[in-house]
Amino acid sequence: MTVLERFLEGDIRALSRLISHVENRSDGYLELLSRLYPKVGGAVRIGVTGPPGAGKSTLVNCLAHRLLKEGLKVGVIAVDPTSPFTGGALLGDRVRMADFPTDGSFYFRSMATRGASGGLAGATDNVTILYDAFGFDVTLLETVGVGQVELDIVDSCDTVAVVVVPESGDSVQTMKAGLMEIADLFCVNKADRPGADRILSELRQMLKMRKPSADKWSIPVVKTVATSTEGVEELYETITKHQEHMKAEGAFDERRRRQIHKKLTRILQVRFSRIVEERLPESANIEQIIQDIYDGKTDPFSASDRILKVSLSEFVRA
Amino acid sequence: MTVLERFLEGDIRALSRLISHVENRSDGYLELLSRLYPKVGGAVRIGVTGPPGAGKSTLVNCLAHRLLKEGLKVGVIAVDPTSPFTGGALLGDRVRMADFPTDGSFYFRSMATRGASGGLAGATDNVTILYDAFGFDVTLLETVGVGQVELDIVDSCDTVAVVVVPESGDSVQTMKAGLMEIADLFCVNKADRPGADRILSELRQMLKMRKPSADKWSIPVVKTVATSTEGVEELYETITKHQEHMKAEGAFDERRRRQIHKKLTRILQVRFSRIVEERLPESANIEQIIQDIYDGKTDPFSASDRILKVSLSEFVRA
Repeated sequence: MTVLERFLEGDIRALSRLISHVENRSDGYLELLSRLYPKVGGAVRIGVTGPPGAGKSTLVNCLAHRLLKEGLKVGVIAVDPTSPFTGGALLGDRVRMADFPTDGSFYFRSMATRGASGGLAGATDNVTILYDAFGFDVTLLETVGVGQVELDIVDSCDTVAVVVVPESGDSVQTMKAGLMEIADLFCVNKADRPGADRILSELRQMLKMRKPSADKWSIPVVKTVATSTEGVEELYETITKHQEHMKAEGAFDERRRRQIHKKLTRILQVRFSRIVEERLPESANIEQIIQDIYDGKTDPFSASDRILKVSLSEFVRA
Repeated sequence: MTVLERFLEGDIRALSRLISHVENRSDGYLELLSRLYPKVGGAVRIGVTGPPGAGKSTLVNCLAHRLLKEGLKVGVIAVDPTSPFTGGALLGDRVRMADFPTDGSFYFRSMATRGASGGLAGATDNVTILYDAFGFDVTLLETVGVGQVELDIVDSCDTVAVVVVPESGDSVQTMKAGLMEIADLFCVNKADRPGADRILSELRQMLKMRKPSADKWSIPVVKTVATSTEGVEELYETITKHQEHMKAEGAFDERRRRQIHKKLTRILQVRFSRIVEERLPESANIEQIIQDIYDGKTDPFSASDRILKVSLSEFVRA
């Protein structure tokens, strides 16, 4: 049996193999995704994001257990930009898998910021496609960071939970980091610590001053203590409520269309990026251009103009 | 006087303003860089990278002080993917500036992973151009992370120091993270802690097994305790030795040419990326394509093929 056949029969090791295939953008990965796409159903994507040390992993584990209890199949993707260095990824993956069923109803994968520019958001998208085609009902996307790349990732979720902790300090920072724009709900984790009530009321205050959103959803703030599963039920219910609200308002479909637009944009950007990488070295006068820049006769910015104008058509047709 | 005029006269606040301008890719930033490029001289770029908590900031501060002592002007760029969340950037900038001269011979800037895909490496490049045109002799580039983006950043340096600590653990991880390929020297920081000698000998063992590099440089390992400046002199000398070696072997120029090639690639990728972002929404049948994907009649991968083939010429000519 091929890996693909085993994947289609629900073999979790085949899923793992195909994820690596897609993650590394190995030959034929686009064809594979294209072929599996018709199997993509309605798997829901829940994003969980927040500062390092906010307890996102524990919270995501709790949510995964809660979803499994409903009989739902769950795939987790954890995006950690620091993991290639700390080397935590692989070991951590095994540790985090340990408590979960191995019957094919659960899978966990961590992803490092790898690959070309824009690669991570695209790669994460692609893994959710695999999860969905594999038959998972829910994808939990956990990201730490958070720069634009990570914001892009959670932005392609159906529901985004932003996790903060009492230590997160001044909530003005939360706004600065652009979190107000992406949050569908806030979760104050480690809520048994001092300062929890202060950040809770600050957040609520800030949310009040916010303009009402087009989807008529008012962003709730939930308190949790993930280590003791306190508040996880409320978090789960709030997420469910958000999804129901979005569906009732037609906003869910709207979001899905926007996600498709984004996905297309990313695919095209990655393709163009590759075209540049592959074809620039073959470009007729590239050596001369580099020499001219090196000699100070021109600069890379003007030179890129020249390349765009002169050799564009030759450049992009391949 | 315009900001640019003040910049050219060595006004550090004007430098700060232009960095923000370039970082935000505000209107005219490419023209600005193009205009300043002829002023770019031979500022040396030193990259310092390593896992979170390895003491890179302290080490970079030490190096900056050491360089200033030589009468060199120094600009520091610290790239921290977690900073938008922790909100540490601005406050941290001020703290890190505190010990340094304010006479225009030193500047510190932290950068978060912001902007579009590939944006960070490009933005960092651009700030080094500003530093160089401003008259700094050395740019110190400090990155934490580390994914491909951060590797790209240090890869555009003339000398790359990889910092590890005794706690970094198994040096196999160091190899996995792709650090062997980018290191010109290793620095075992916090070398007063247990395990320092073990990691030192592990690294040296690994370096012995390595194929000799084309530039005939054998990678040294230096021990430091940055908090007490122990070993910083040796680190400084090792960096200087590396630069001299590269220049003597002609490898320095070779590297600079490769950097120019990279810079061109990045500029073109960012430009194409923007073209996709701006022109895709105007693309004739984009709404229909999104609808078809939504309805399951096609998938984003096949659709991107269609877009590339049908509307490519219309798409990229603007």
